[in-house]
Order: sequence, then structure tokens, then C-alpha cells
Amino acid sequence: MNDQRPVQLRVGLAQVDTRVGDLAGNAELVTTWTARAADDGVHLVVFPEMTLTGYPPEDLVLRESFAHASEQAVVDLAGTLAEQGLGDVAVVVGYLAHTEGSGPAPIDEPPTDDDRPADANPRRGAPRNAAALLYRGEVVVRYYKRHLPNYGVFDEARYFVPGTEMPIVRLHGIDVALTVCEDLWVEGGPCGVIGAAGADLVVSPNASPYERAKDDLRLPLVRRRAHEARATVLYCNQVGGQDELVFDGDSLAVAPDGELLARAPQFVEHLLTVDLTIDPASVPERTEGRVGPMTVTRHVLSEQPVPAFAARPGAVAEPLTDCEEVWRALVLGLRDFIDKNGMPSVVLGLSGGIDSALVAAIAVDALGADRVHGVGLPSKWSTEHSLSDAADSAQRLGLHYSVVPIAPMVEAYEKSVELSGVAAENLQARVRGTLLMALSNQHGHLLLATSNKSEVAVGYSTLYGDAAGGFAPIKDVPKTLVWELARWRNAEARRRGETEPIPQNSIDKPPSAELAPGQVDTDSLPSYEELDAVIADYVDRDLGMAQLLERGHDPDVVARVLRLVDAAEFKRRQSAPGTKISLKAFGRDRRLPITNRWRESLPTVREGAGK
Amino acid sequence: MNDQRPVQLRVGLAQVDTRVGDLAGNAELVTTWTARAADDGVHLVVFPEMTLTGYPPEDLVLRESFAHASEQAVVDLAGTLAEQGLGDVAVVVGYLAHTEGSGPAPIDEPPTDDDRPADANPRRGAPRNAAALLYRGEVVVRYYKRHLPNYGVFDEARYFVPGTEMPIVRLHGIDVALTVCEDLWVEGGPCGVIGAAGADLVVSPNASPYERAKDDLRLPLVRRRAHEARATVLYCNQVGGQDELVFDGDSLAVAPDGELLARAPQFVEHLLTVDLTIDPASVPERTEGRVGPMTVTRHVLSEQPVPAFAARPGAVAEPLTDCEEVWRALVLGLRDFIDKNGMPSVVLGLSGGIDSALVAAIAVDALGADRVHGVGLPSKWSTEHSLSDAADSAQRLGLHYSVVPIAPMVEAYEKSVELSGVAAENLQARVRGTLLMALSNQHGHLLLATSNKSEVAVGYSTLYGDAAGGFAPIKDVPKTLVWELARWRNAEARRRGETEPIPQNSIDKPPSAELAPGQVDTDSLPSYEELDAVIADYVDRDLGMAQLLERGHDPDVVARVLRLVDAAEFKRRQSAPGTKISLKAFGRDRRLPITNRWRESLPTVREGAGK
Repeated sequence: MNDQRPVQLRVGLAQVDTRVGDLAGNAELVTTWTARAADDGVHLVVFPEMTLTGYPPEDLVLRESFAHASEQAVVDLAGTLAEQGLGDVAVVVGYLAHTEGSGPAPIDEPPTDDDRPADANPRRGAPRNAAALLYRGEVVVRYYKRHLPNYGVFDEARYFVPGTEMPIVRLHGIDVALTVCEDLWVEGGPCGVIGAAGADLVVSPNASPYERAKDDLRLPLVRRRAHEARATVLYCNQVGGQDELVFDGDSLAVAPDGELLARAPQFVEHLLTVDLTIDPASVPERTEGRVGPMTVTRHVLSEQPVPAFAARPGAVAEPLTDCEEVWRALVLGLRDFIDKNGMPSVVLGLSGGIDSALVAAIAVDALGADRVHGVGLPSKWSTEHSLSDAADSAQRLGLHYSVVPIAPMVEAYEKSVELSGVAAENLQARVRGTLLMALSNQHGHLLLATSNKSEVAVGYSTLYGDAAGGFAPIKDVPKTLVWELARWRNAEARRRGETEPIPQNSIDKPPSAELAPGQVDTDSLPSYEELDAVIADYVDRDLGMAQLLERGHDPDVVARVLRLVDAAEFKRRQSAPGTKISLKAFGRDRRLPITNRWRESLPTVREGAGK
Repeated sequence: MNDQRPVQLRVGLAQVDTRVGDLAGNAELVTTWTARAADDGVHLVVFPEMTLTGYPPEDLVLRESFAHASEQAVVDLAGTLAEQGLGDVAVVVGYLAHTEGSGPAPIDEPPTDDDRPADANPRRGAPRNAAALLYRGEVVVRYYKRHLPNYGVFDEARYFVPGTEMPIVRLHGIDVALTVCEDLWVEGGPCGVIGAAGADLVVSPNASPYERAKDDLRLPLVRRRAHEARATVLYCNQVGGQDELVFDGDSLAVAPDGELLARAPQFVEHLLTVDLTIDPASVPERTEGRVGPMTVTRHVLSEQPVPAFAARPGAVAEPLTDCEEVWRALVLGLRDFIDKNGMPSVVLGLSGGIDSALVAAIAVDALGADRVHGVGLPSKWSTEHSLSDAADSAQRLGLHYSVVPIAPMVEAYEKSVELSGVAAENLQARVRGTLLMALSNQHGHLLLATSNKSEVAVGYSTLYGDAAGGFAPIKDVPKTLVWELARWRNAEARRRGETEPIPQNSIDKPPSAELAPGQVDTDSLPSYEELDAVIADYVDRDLGMAQLLERGHDPDVVARVLRLVDAAEFKRRQSAPGTKISLKAFGRDRRLPITNRWRESLPTVREGAGK
């Protein structure tokens, strides 16, 4: 480096809400936010992982036409930025890289020398999870993600080939190294390489799904990596809902000494700007070539530092409380599912119970009251307070409300087939499901299912009845948290001087499916406190029976809950997707066989003991 | 080797039908079939991949209690075999290996030095896909699968750590090398190591799911590997249905010169015995230590060859025709789903159409007529022949049959809510779904959905209506193949002098959903010949628009079909599982996002052109 005095740079972390598969729309997001950044004097702007394709694109990665289009989109984007006068802003975007000339084998030819079945080599074209630095109309360098997560919700070993090169770009006299997401979670990974090779700044585009309290992990993590890389780290995470995932943003900038320079708010699109003053003398040497398992390459765009400017202090967003964080995850997850799928409105059954009251409140927060339609569907077993609580809920929220008694339909079935017990109970739920789907089809509303995680876990719901729906907003919320969120949301309304959205009576009364006279949930289930504690350990932590007993759970409750959870696997495979907020949702990150004879409850505890 | 004269060995390939998670039951299968093999004078018997756990165990692998139990089960099995007087038979079984002492981090402690989120390291305990050789009460050696498939239906990178050791065991003077499944599909993989190190025999436990015509690939593959290993290869594949997968057996023994020594039939449990005469002199050298990427270890059980015996010629099963192969896959897939899940019986709606007639015939072949309940559910739009064809189908098959007209229920709904168009059509399908589920709940039958792959692809079905069901036997069968199978099955009946199970009228009449007067499928869809051809290229081969047009498909048909297939993603996510028979079923091997803005139909062809 020619000049060893401290140099300045204004950087921007654009945490945007991309759409999977929408290459053109996502490119437009990049130009829009880059223009905003340019207006604010930003020299380098970082976008989230796989900005152009959205994340996770799943098996779209394996479609050649999509991969080619992504490669073209990143080149086109560089041109567009320059055309729009934004070429002088360095832009880091994520995309799907694909190697030309290594396309698929010709169709209808017999398998060739690699001896594999036709679907055995989906990574033809060597797809890579890439980040590109764009500058003055050109794609200057391409970095390929080295560490491919393949656990939980991630399947990147299925899709990508890992990278081995570490490009470092000199921009305005500052050496910028590229990484992608998981690269940052690995000690001795690319940040170790960067620390050994020498750089001033590490950019890290991310797609890190929300999980309760995950934000508490990020800052210490980024601090360790900044220390390891001996460089400032810019961590930019995407925002938005994608099927069962929701991304919370929470982008960060951290100095090599661990100082938090700036932090973006969660759950909103945001441009976080940070004014850096970097001392190139603090980097002892700057090498290239083989460093550890990677090859470091150096690229010079400009040696000249930017003119000195008045630095602004970095903004650090206030952390959210646990309930507020969950609430905003659920609202954003629902809003993006509805809007990204182009649905005009939603419909749901309002029973007067807490689950549907909470889902209605989430839906109104997500979409506005005018896009939410509630239907009261009383049966002959519905208590009087059910209908009045449902109406109260509708009125508090200001949503569209109607009532359709289900007795005539139920009676018509009962005249045609003889039903008793669970079959008769389920019939009522299915008549409701059929009515709601009829309204959905007639008016174009998406049906929201109101099942919570506790019910989903133990199968305490009716397939094609209350389990029916295109989205289940609280599918990953245990019942005890349902109550907590309801109380929090009402308190929040009081704090703001607004009407409490959830009827107190819905919160206070004992939960009941009301499918038989006098029925309450505790007829069939343990208390929700016990149930949720076992679910947390058995489902989220994947503990076996012995460990569950060690942790002090009641053996009879454990035996009963495990039997229910195992038996409900089948039902869960047919239920609607919902926003993930915990370690393991009943979605693609917990893929157990339907046909599965393993039962934790058999070896150590007798069946059906007592309860 | 002390003695260089040719030595004999009688080997057995036990292609059994295991159950995922049922460690005890699977161990019992091994003792039962080993006893059978011992009675037949077999010296070495090979079982399929992951015999003890069943395959694929999916996320069960990550449950510590299960992994520990699997480790214990293989040790116990060795003891049980010896106790039962079977210790002198060498037995190769697959299981889930797990390393003691590397268990999970203590619960509720903060994340430690590896900086990962709590679910980031599921492979704690280094789970491995293992094969063990059991002999005289001991687990003699353990081999860990080296090549972990992670494409199509396979997710092994999610679960397993790859092996690096190649144990070779001398048994009765013959050197036996171990591999597992995918190891055999890789040129220059473990078979290359074996060829360089020197061995007489390669055992290969497999779990290779059925796919149409896949059996045509296996023999050439095993021949190439036998040549590479310079050894006889024993390829033992599992049999049976597991959720959406069905395994077809088709076990093989192939000599180093490529000679097919024996081949087992498909779709049945079977012990294939092969009498080998091996010339140890044909192996030029026998080394140990590092060979290529693996470490070869040698273990001697017995130098002494078995006493000479009269060798029997190996049996080679007749190959099945395409239709027979598919039929047997569908029958076995359904039977195992029902039986392994412990269901007593099935119920389905009989419409008089070809799909339900075919599913009924499959169900009767799978379960026997007494476990199959058909219900005619005529509406006001049902034509006369619908009910008579349904009754004819029931009578030909001898299943339980009843009729429930749906008009009273449909009218009850229509009096409560105003419905038109698709909403009114879907209502009828949902009343049928609700009635069938009521019968399912009341009598314990599992409901079979009758949707075929063409319908599932384009979403030509009603969610919670005809799409409802616990299993969809022909979900992966395109409509044109539905007809072909029906004709084949009737011809088969004639050949056997039995009643044709499928009414000719159901085969011949134009397909109709009969949800509106005079409706036929071609009102909404292209011809099934065109539709199925596009589905094969777009879904199974994952081709993009440009390639589809190159292949000569009509542009308007392609535009229309792609739009329908993309739009139906959502509906498919809520449908019942079914037996996979093609390259890509609508199951876990094709996991596209629900929210997905990528549309092949937009860039090159205009929307809704003409049709």
C-alpha cells in the first residue's frame, strides 16, 4: 500500500426482502437500493446472500435454464447500474453461479462413463452459491461460498460445489475480502485465511433464518470473526418470509477490536450506513497465492482513498423483547406468504377461542383489516360465549365478519351415514373446513389454519377440518406462547392507547374444541405447561426417553405425549406450511419417515399408564 | 495365501423387507433368513444396506438414543446368531454406526467454541452408514460407507460422515472386501481400491429404490465394478415400500470376467444362493495400508477352505415386462404402506372412471378384496354409466361396496352459502372427501386418493376433495400409463383365465370429473398424450422452455402446461404421499419452493395464447 494514513469509506448494508426465482424483480431491488445508497454518499453497498435468485431457491438451482438466467442477470445488473449512473458505487450481490460448457448430458442417450443413474449428478454445471462485486459496469470478481450448510433447514450440499478462491479487491485504497454466510460461522475458515493474507474489510452477505433469540448469537459470532480476520466485518442479512422461513435482517458492522459500529433493526427492509475509518498500517502484511486451503487473489480497482468527509456515528437499533420479536416474525412471515403468492385476502374461522383470535390479530397486523374475513361457524355444541367472543374479536379488529351455522350440513351427513365418537366430532370440523374452502374458492381468499404447535405436535386437530388451510400462521407457536403473545399484544395496544385486539374472555377461558358437549382440551391432553415442556425436549431438542426422564418430566406424561407425537407424523405430512420460529419446526428441517416403527415410549415406560 | 488351489464358497444374498426404525424386528428378520441360509449350507450371507435401522431412516439418524440403540443392536445380533447355532455363518448386515463419547453438548449451555447455532452440528457422534461382518458371536469388522449420495431422494450428506477404511476379511481362505451401495456407483472408488489391494469377493449391501427400467442399469454397472475390483461382486438390494419409495430387490452376483452368476426376482423377499469357485491365484498381490484415498486393513478368520461340495448352477430370474414391473411396484408400495403402518383396511370412492377402477384393482392385488371398501358417491351430474361402471368394478373385484348419493349434503351447503363455478364444482368433491373421511374415521379404513401424476402435476383435482387421502397409489403414474396398465392387467387376467378386474367401459370412455353437466377433462386440459409428454420433459427432466420447444412440443401447450404445473406447487405440498416409480416424483426428490416467482412460461411465450 502506497499510503499508510487512515482512510475513510462510507459503506451501506442493504437488508432487502427478495423473492425466490424473481431475477428481474430482485435486480430492480438492487438498483433501487443502490440509488438510495448513492444519494447518501455510500461507496460500497452490500446485499444479502443470493440476492438475485432469492433464498433458498431449492431445486430451482438444478434447473439449467434458471442457472443460466442467473449468470446473465448478474452481468446485466452491472450494466444497468452503470447506465443509471450508479457505476461508481461498488455493489456486492449474491447470485447462483453456473459454469458454461458443462451443461447436462444430451437427453435420451444412455448413461455414460460415470455410471450413475440419470439423477445422480444434479450438480452439472458446478452450481455455486456466489457473491459478485460490481463496479463501473463490470463484474469485477466472483467469490464462491466455501462452507455449505447441510443441516436443519439447509440442504446446500445437494445444490452447490464449494469454492476454493479468496478474491481481495482494493477499493479506494482499502482491501475488501468476500465471504458468504456460513463461511462466517466456521472458525479457521475463510476469516482465518483473510487474517493470514491481510485485508481491511470483510463483506458477508447472509440469508440467516430467524429463530427465537438467534440475534443474541450473531454479535458475539461476528466479533470473533472480525478478530480472526483482523478486519472490519460487514454482516448483511436478508429480510422477509419465504414459505416456512422468515429472515429478520439484524445486519451488523463490527470493527477488528470487536466494537459494534452499527446494527440494523429486525424485520424491516433497511439501509444501514456506516462510516469507516481504516488504518491500513494495522494490517502487517498483504500476501496472495495459497493461504491454508484457499487461493488468495488480489484485484486493484482504485488506490486513491475517497476525499475526507465528516463521519456520522453508526446507528445501533434497540433490541426487541422476546414477544415483540416473535410477533413481528409471525406478521412478516404471513404478509410475505400472502403477498409474494399474489393472494388478495384471507379467510379464517373464528371460534371465540384463543388460537383463532390470535391468528386474526396477526392477520390484521400483517394485511390490514380490510383483507381479513372471519366466519363464525357455530354448531349445536358451541357454547353461547363462543359466538359472542368471536363477534367481539371481529369487532375489535374491524375485519369482515359473517356467521354460518353448520347444523344443516352436519345433519345431512348424519342422515346418510352413521357416525359416532371421533368420526362424529371430526365431521363438524370438516363441514367447517368445506365451508371455509368454498368461501375461499368463491371469493379468492386464502384460508388460514389456526392450529398451534402443541396441537400439530400431538395431532389434536382434524385433517381436512381445522387443519385445512393454505398457511398456518401459528403452526410453530406452542400453546403456552399463544397465551403469552395474546397478553403481550393486548398490553402493547394499551400502551399505544388502542383497543385491545384480543377478547380477554378468549384468553381466560379453558381451551375447548367444542366438538362434543362440555368437552375441554384437558380431557384428551396433559396440561399445556407439561405438554409444551415435553415437546420442547422431544421435538426441538430431539432427546430420547432416558434423557427426558433425567430432565424430570413425569414418566406417564412423557409416554403419552411421545405416543401422540409419533402417531401424528402422518397427519403433519398433510398440513399447511407455517412460519418457523423455533429450533425445529414441523417442516423441512424435521423430516422423519411417516412409516416409522421406532417408538421412544416402548422400551422404558409402560403404555397408557394411568391417564 | 497358503494354498493357491481354487476354493469354494456358498454365499447367500438375502433381499428382505425391513421396517424403518424397527431394530428388534429387523434383527429378527436377519436371524430368520440366516437360519434359512444355514439350512441350505450357505457360508456367507449378505443383507441389504442399513438392515437393522431400515432405509432411509432420515432424521432418526440424528436422534442419539436411536443411534446408540443401533450400535447395541448389531452387537446383540452377533450374540443372538451364535446362541441360535448360526455363529459359523458369516453375516454382513447394515446398521447405523455412532461413536460413543462424542455425544451432544450439554443442554441449556451457551454455544461453545465451534460458534455454530444449536442445530448446526447434527452429525455429533459421527454417524456412519455402516456394514458389519458378524461371525461366531462377534462383530469382526465394521465398514463405513465412503460415497454418500445427496441427490434425488438421497440426503446422506445431511446424516453421515464418510468412511476412509477398507477392511478385508479372510473367510475360509477367501478375501472378502466390504462396500455399501453408492460405493459401487463410483468409478475409481472403493472398487478401485479393492482392485489395487487385492481381494476375491466384494459384498455390497444396497438400498436402491425402484425406478422404471433401473434394473437395466444394474447389471452393466456391477459388471464394470467387478472388472475394476478384479473380484466377484455380491450385490444385495432391499425389497419393500417405505413411504414414497419402493425397493425392488433384483440382487445380483457377477464374476470378475462379467459373467452373471445369479439374479434374484424383483419385488419379493428372496434368498439368492450362489456357489462360487474362486481361484486365489488370479489375485496378483494382497497388500494393506494406504491404497489411494483409503486405508486397507486385513483380518483373518479362517484360512481353511470349506470342504468341497457339489456346486449348483446359479438361478437367473426372468426379467419382468415394463407394465408388470410398474404394477408390482405399485402393489408392493401400497401393501407395505398399509401393513407397515398397521392399517386394517382401505376405503376409496369409485366413480366409474379409470383412475378409481385402477386403484381398486391395485388395492385388491395388494391387500385382498376383503380389506378394500369401495363407495359410489353419485351427484346430480353423474351420468348413468358412472354408477353402473363403479358397481361393475366392485363386482369384478369382489370388494365391499356401498352407495351414498351426495345431493342432500351438497344442497345443505348451497342453501347456506352462495357458490358458483369452480367453488360449486369443488364443493361436490369435498362432500365426497368428507364422507369418505367420515367412513375412514368410523371404521378405521385408510382413505386412498385416486389422483394420477398428470392431474397432480397440473392441479386438476380438489384440495381436501378427491386429493384427500392417506396414500395415493397412482400419484406418480401419468394418465397415459394408467390406461396402459389397465389394459395390461386385464390381459393378464385373461391369460390366467380370471375375470378382468377393470370394466372395459371405464377404459374406453372419455375421462371426466363430472362436476358440471357434460364436462370432460379436455375442456380444461390438452390431450393426455400431449400433457404427459410435456410433464415428462418439464418435471422429470427439468428442462427449461427453450429446450422444450427444441424438442418439438407445441408452444401453446407448453405455455399452458407450465403455467398449470407451476401454479399447482402449492396444492401438491398438501397432498398424500404415493409410490415413486419415475425419475422424479412429486415428493421429496423434487422440493421446489411454494413461493416461487420463476416462470418458464413468461419470457418466451405469451400467456394463454389461443387455448
